[in-house]
This record gives sequence, C-alpha cells and structure tokens, in this order.
Amino acid sequence: MTTQQLHEQILQKKSFLCVGLDPDLTKIPSHLLENEDPIFEFNKAIIDATHDLTVGYKPNTAFFEAYGIKGWMSLQKTIHYINENYPDIFTIADAKRGDIGNTSSMYAKAFFEDLNFDSVTVAPYMGKDSVEPFLAFENKHTIMLALTSNEGAFDFQTLNTNGKELYKQVLETSKTWKNSENLMYVVGATKAEYFTEIRKIVPDSFLLVPGIGAQGGSLSEVCKYGMNDKVGLLVNSARAIIYASKGTDFAEKAREEALKVQKEMEGIIGLKFQV
Amino acid sequence: MTTQQLHEQILQKKSFLCVGLDPDLTKIPSHLLENEDPIFEFNKAIIDATHDLTVGYKPNTAFFEAYGIKGWMSLQKTIHYINENYPDIFTIADAKRGDIGNTSSMYAKAFFEDLNFDSVTVAPYMGKDSVEPFLAFENKHTIMLALTSNEGAFDFQTLNTNGKELYKQVLETSKTWKNSENLMYVVGATKAEYFTEIRKIVPDSFLLVPGIGAQGGSLSEVCKYGMNDKVGLLVNSARAIIYASKGTDFAEKAREEALKVQKEMEGIIGLKFQV
Repeated sequence: MTTQQLHEQILQKKSFLCVGLDPDLTKIPSHLLENEDPIFEFNKAIIDATHDLTVGYKPNTAFFEAYGIKGWMSLQKTIHYINENYPDIFTIADAKRGDIGNTSSMYAKAFFEDLNFDSVTVAPYMGKDSVEPFLAFENKHTIMLALTSNEGAFDFQTLNTNGKELYKQVLETSKTWKNSENLMYVVGATKAEYFTEIRKIVPDSFLLVPGIGAQGGSLSEVCKYGMNDKVGLLVNSARAIIYASKGTDFAEKAREEALKVQKEMEGIIGLKFQV
Repeated sequence: MTTQQLHEQILQKKSFLCVGLDPDLTKIPSHLLENEDPIFEFNKAIIDATHDLTVGYKPNTAFFEAYGIKGWMSLQKTIHYINENYPDIFTIADAKRGDIGNTSSMYAKAFFEDLNFDSVTVAPYMGKDSVEPFLAFENKHTIMLALTSNEGAFDFQTLNTNGKELYKQVLETSKTWKNSENLMYVVGATKAEYFTEIRKIVPDSFLLVPGIGAQGGSLSEVCKYGMNDKVGLLVNSARAIIYASKGTDFAEKAREEALKVQKEMEGIIGLKFQV
C-alpha cells in the first residue's frame, strides 16, 4: 500500500484510527476459550465489528509469540483474514525488530513476504544498516521508534546528545538513509507537546501514535500539534477498544468504543479538511 | 542456569565459545533440503558435532521467523533438542526484543517459559520498563545491547550524551534497574579497545561478544581487554563455523572450525587461570 492510498482511505472513512490487536488469553471473553483457536476467533470478531471505522490493524507480535507455534498460527490466520477480507486496511506488525544487516533482511522477509504485512515497527539502536534492509521493500513501510509512550522513554530517548535530544537525532539521521521515504515513526501520545518539534524534523511522515486511552494521551492535543496537511497520523488504541467488554457482547462494545474515537476523528478531519 | 554454573562449564570445557545458529536455506548444504525439516536437521548436526567444544548456542530468531510457522517449529525443535540432550549448555534466543512493560512480559513468557531458553537478547531504546519484565525471571538472563558490532553502531550508540557515549550511559543506567544482576551485555568484538572502558562500568557482568571471524574481530584482543576473573565472556561465532562447508562434511568441518577456536580459548584460559 502507498501512503497516498492510506491518505485516501483516511479521508474516505473519516478516521485515522488503528486498532491494536494484543490478544491475551487471560483477558479475552471466556466463552471464546472453547474454540480451537480462541485468539483468532477473538481477532476476527473485533476486525469484523470495526473494519469500517479503522484504517489500520496492529497485531502485537509478543501476544502471539507467547503462545508458541499456536500463537504464530493465530498471527498468520489474522493477517491473512485481514488481507483477504479487507484488503484496503493498512496492516502493522508491531514487532520492534532490528539487528545487523543480514539478520534484518530475514526479519523483513518474515513480515513483508511471508506474512505480507504493509509495515513493521523497528528499533533504532543499531543504526542505519539495521533498518535499511526493511526500507528496501517497495510499498512497504518501516515504522521506527522515535519517542515512545512509556515511562522508560525518558531513560535514553530524551538524553541530550550534542545539544539535542536523542530521539531528534534519531529522526534527523534516519532521513539520510536509503529509501527513507518508506519510514514512518512511533511517537507516543502522552507527550503531545513534543509533536511541534518533531514536525519540524519530519513534516511529511506518517506518525504512529500509541498511548491514547489506557495510557492517558489526548487525541485533540495530538492532532493540534501533530497533524499535517495529509493528516499524517495513525492513532493506535488497543485495550480501550478490544477489552471494552469481557462478555459475549465484546465485539459490539468494541465497535461502540471504536465509533466514539472515529466520531471524534471525523470532527477533527471535518474542521481541518472540510470533507 | 546460574552464572556460576556457566562459569564452571567454561572452566571444564576450556571454552567460552557460543555457536550462533543462523540457518539460511540458501546457505545450508543442498542435500539437507530433501528432509522434511532441513533447518532442524542442519542445527541438530551442528549441535551434535560441536557440543563439547562450546558452552552456548544462540539461535537467531530472524532466521526461523523468515520461514513462518515451519521456521518457528524448527526453532522449537532446536531448543528442545539442546535442552533434552545437552542440558548443561547455555541457550540464547537472539531476538533483540523490547517493548512497553506488558508487552515485554509476553516476550519474556515466549522465550523463558514457552521455549525455555536460558537467556534472550533485548534492545535498550525503550528503557527501564521495557527490560525489567525480562529481569524478573529467576536464573534467566537478559542480554542487553550495549555496543554492537555493525557499522550502524556509530550512528547512535557512540553519540556523546552529557559527556559520555550513549552505550556507557546505557550500561550505567541499567545497573540501577530491579534484578539487574540478571543482566548481561552485547559488546561487539570489532571494537576491542572499548572493552577497557566497559569493564570499568560492568566489571562482573558476562559480555556476549559477536563479531569474531566473519566480522573481523580478534579473539586475543577481546580477551586482553574484556576478560574478568570469572572469564566473563561468551564469544559468538556463527558463519565461520556453521558454514565452514556446503558439502556432506559440513558438520565435521564445523567441528574443525569450532575446535580451532576452542584451542585458542584453552590457551588463553590456561594462561590466565592456570587450569
């Protein structure tokens, strides 16, 4: 998928919501546990109930790997289900990978070829040759951690490095890499005031924004400082939507929560883009 | 496994070699491709041929994930094979994971519980709460990236942050984390002169050292600057050993290469520890 297609989908759906799929067997409705693959059944129901309100799904690989081969099979079934039934949806493997060049090439193969995700999240610590193998894939997107939404973000990401915070240096340096137009960035919603500075460095890039909802970030604040003239934001919500109910109505309640967010986004898009 | 047990194994085998398992279907001997699971057969043969010369095996998860579910099954069979047949061997899931707390907990569960590795590699960028969930596991070890062996290491890891390089700040900060005694660190062999400075910060920690062999690092230089009074080093070699031959003699040739390294290590250990 191209960023232009993603942009068009955002305007059409009046939504820049991405639903995070973090399926945890201890949190999903207990009646699903009778199924052969409860994780896939859970994801499928969430997807069917929300696909018209969201432009992206972001399966978090940890929540599949924790269940071993069965979990990896659930991940494969989930991404296949999205690609087959809702091919316009932007898919993100939230995997936070990154290693030396020949290893990153294998990770890129895993997520872009074997599983056919549109994008994957990566960590920047190992630098250029750990990220460029991902960037080599045409119409695939590499979403690099810049400023994350967790408490530990302040351990290293905001350290002063030669007069600027490390995350700014990460953003600036990454722009010099080959095929850097395939980069997007993770910027946590809990730090809305940082978006102004970030937009000075990467005015045109899509930003994947976790931290709305359960982690306390404000959607309107993020949009105020982070939106660009192509919207340029994918706002992720996981727990607040997928765990809205533990009952048999979980998919319906997930839709209600997604609809609330979509309506708020529709208002913001309408105001800014007169659509 | 405790670090004391690892130390004892090192003295007993007169080796601190770790063999990296990076199985690539385009590089393994072609006669193996007839097997139902060529990756496992390759690993098994390498393991059987080298287990008395090495104290650790380090499967690189990327090289399994790239083959999807079949790859994940090969990884599971490989770690089970080591644990069942050579339970004294220290196992490392080279996965470079790291995410917000509840996600890192799931990764820890994947590698420490589901797959039963002794250790896993993690990336530091997201800070304390992305690593502490791994550290919570007793007698399991978390090997954090400090200074890696690739070219991109100089993009961010050596940036000056308030008067010291970032990797030094990473080492220092990590020592304040809960259960930090369960930390080990990745330090690339291509930068042997850095070991002196690193040992000032983490004198007692085990260091996992990639970059010997194919990547050009020198074993004697690494030992000169990096060894402590408990050895404190695990030196990884992958390609130079596992791809020593593409013929039916690949396991025998792998053993020959591993033996060369082990003999050099035996000399160094003998000199320093009079064993």
